[in-house]
Amino acid sequence: MLTLDKVFNAQVVLKDIIRKTAIVRSYGIAPNCKLFLKPENLQTTGSFKVRGAGYKMAMLSDEEKKKGVIACSAGNHAQGVALAALKCGIKSLICLPDNAPISKIEATKNFGAEVCLVEGCYDDAYRKALELKESKGYTFIHPFDDENVIAGQGTVALEIMNELDDIDAIIVPVGGGGLISGIAYTVKQIRPSIKVYGVQVAGAPSMFNSIKSDKIECLNGVQTVADGIAVKQPGENTFNLVKKYVDDIALVTDDEISSAVLALIEKQKMIAEGAGAAAVAAAMFEKFPVKDKNVVCIVSGGNIDVTSLSRIIERGLMKSGRSARLLVELIDKPGQLTNISSVISSCGGNVTGVHYERGNTSNINSCHLRIEMETRDYAHVQLITESLRKEGFKILDQGEIL
Amino acid sequence: MLTLDKVFNAQVVLKDIIRKTAIVRSYGIAPNCKLFLKPENLQTTGSFKVRGAGYKMAMLSDEEKKKGVIACSAGNHAQGVALAALKCGIKSLICLPDNAPISKIEATKNFGAEVCLVEGCYDDAYRKALELKESKGYTFIHPFDDENVIAGQGTVALEIMNELDDIDAIIVPVGGGGLISGIAYTVKQIRPSIKVYGVQVAGAPSMFNSIKSDKIECLNGVQTVADGIAVKQPGENTFNLVKKYVDDIALVTDDEISSAVLALIEKQKMIAEGAGAAAVAAAMFEKFPVKDKNVVCIVSGGNIDVTSLSRIIERGLMKSGRSARLLVELIDKPGQLTNISSVISSCGGNVTGVHYERGNTSNINSCHLRIEMETRDYAHVQLITESLRKEGFKILDQGEIL
Repeated sequence: MLTLDKVFNAQVVLKDIIRKTAIVRSYGIAPNCKLFLKPENLQTTGSFKVRGAGYKMAMLSDEEKKKGVIACSAGNHAQGVALAALKCGIKSLICLPDNAPISKIEATKNFGAEVCLVEGCYDDAYRKALELKESKGYTFIHPFDDENVIAGQGTVALEIMNELDDIDAIIVPVGGGGLISGIAYTVKQIRPSIKVYGVQVAGAPSMFNSIKSDKIECLNGVQTVADGIAVKQPGENTFNLVKKYVDDIALVTDDEISSAVLALIEKQKMIAEGAGAAAVAAAMFEKFPVKDKNVVCIVSGGNIDVTSLSRIIERGLMKSGRSARLLVELIDKPGQLTNISSVISSCGGNVTGVHYERGNTSNINSCHLRIEMETRDYAHVQLITESLRKEGFKILDQGEIL
Repeated sequence: MLTLDKVFNAQVVLKDIIRKTAIVRSYGIAPNCKLFLKPENLQTTGSFKVRGAGYKMAMLSDEEKKKGVIACSAGNHAQGVALAALKCGIKSLICLPDNAPISKIEATKNFGAEVCLVEGCYDDAYRKALELKESKGYTFIHPFDDENVIAGQGTVALEIMNELDDIDAIIVPVGGGGLISGIAYTVKQIRPSIKVYGVQVAGAPSMFNSIKSDKIECLNGVQTVADGIAVKQPGENTFNLVKKYVDDIALVTDDEISSAVLALIEKQKMIAEGAGAAAVAAAMFEKFPVKDKNVVCIVSGGNIDVTSLSRIIERGLMKSGRSARLLVELIDKPGQLTNISSVISSCGGNVTGVHYERGNTSNINSCHLRIEMETRDYAHVQLITESLRKEGFKILDQGEIL
């Protein structure tokens, strides 16, 4: 049974394992509310996961500790378990699917865990982990559906309530539901007037669907930039806790998350992963009734592959009209590229890429030119497009922007 | 005359204008020393510049305040002056070259400054600003060569010495020299045993050259990713202060800066601009004798264009062997792409881009394949290259990495 005592106990036990992440007042990201960020992306291992894993492990019996722990994760949970085990002097084994990003595998190893790469997908790695748990007697550390793990995540709420007096709402990203369960439970025991809102991503709405239909639902698949909350099915404990203690739950899109990641970079000089920015996206795009309220958004993690980061930034720029792609059909004769680029530069656009393709056009003498450029905003893209048309160029496609 | 009293006075005066940026202990970026970051990228306006501008403005006479201030900058100084003026209730006019990045112009306007776009380059904008200063009676706020501006920057040193007891060295990025002058002067008055080191970038070594030749040198041009410290000529005051109080000054390359920006993102979840990461680059690449020492690196700013950020990340990945490009010559026959990609994937490399080019090869039947991939490190790139060679492929070029 989850109790408030356990959360308080976790706070004491975790002192040597985690950092207290100081709340940041954020300006300009969500102008309609007074926004505070709880930056768990700055937590050791780059996410809150070390809290739950750390408390879970500290509570193991000596015999369990001696045998070691096992977990299955390609992400933040892996690193959380690895570091917590290191700090508790416990041996840890992490099963990962062999297609996991190289950077995540390396990070997990760097925290001292043994890594077992399993051919196949996450489910294969999970089966392998359960198998090893049985045959070797390891303790399995569940990523969310475990009361000690949930109690550990609840320490986030204690820190917030200790640091800020006048909070109206806390917005929390939801994957399996461990973090929001811990936070909502803790908040509602201590200061029940504070609203707790959950955010899932439209491509992985497992908890959202389950709450709406009032029973645990399992998704066939998930598809999102926010891989940290791409969970097919909530846990039993977490489903019940969310149902009981969470005020509302909403969805954000991948584009909204990309805009939030970009806003955190530009306004806050802070890196969040997709899942980590979900709560901020919900505040930015006003998914909850928090106008003029004091709102704390949990930035749950910052472990984003830099190549994914580049892609998210690109998407965010495209989305806001600050970059654009044009596909132009042109007659294959000298001087065409000069004409196009002079039109663009005279409009103040900055060409950043050009791809030239022959064939596959309606006219045998024509070819395709794909142009990438930096622009100011939508109106600027329009201006450039119109100017090119006036010069007689045929614009086939303006990428994602129009 | 710069005095310690002025620095202390600045600390009091600036209380309502700036944030105290809390020092961050950083692990894993520069393993040879104990590294602390002073994150002025998290300062209001995203850089330390608001300190100097703020103190300078607070010290103006009532009459000067009434007339307003003028500055010339396309970067951090513009935003610092704009915000400081706003807080002091002074009218500010910022001259910018009309090719300044849109994002910087918008940011300056957002802090309430009036913006005057001047056709041409920085020098043209500077001339215009001096002209307006004369004709309108505005006070010109110099970006670095002014004793009150320098005293304002010196408050960074007071905060560091207040927060940490046992510092051996402070490493500071150097452009015009305002920040390091303020820091070095203050440190050497209070705790002269602390070493103060300056860092410039190889593409803009104006202070470095001036100190080496013991007279102020002016560069013909500057070329670097660290635009915040791309200054052609140090000031007279700053040159003399650096000469007297700074222990040593070294250069870092654009590649080293890119690696530092990347390391700050990955290890610290923090955005620094190129100039802002220069001191960290110096610690990473051991430009000073700080082995096993307690070192504070000033992360001076975080105002980086996201498109530049993408480019710097790409460069940093390439530099550390985590992405690579291979140019392969192959005979134009079916199955070649399959063979190449199966060799790469069996070595654990992840192909992220393929460009196929006919023509321009030594053999009329052959063509070029440019492959981009994610890799673990140099050794991994080597492994893939060797495996391809063993399969009979001719590797022409390995991009920047070998």
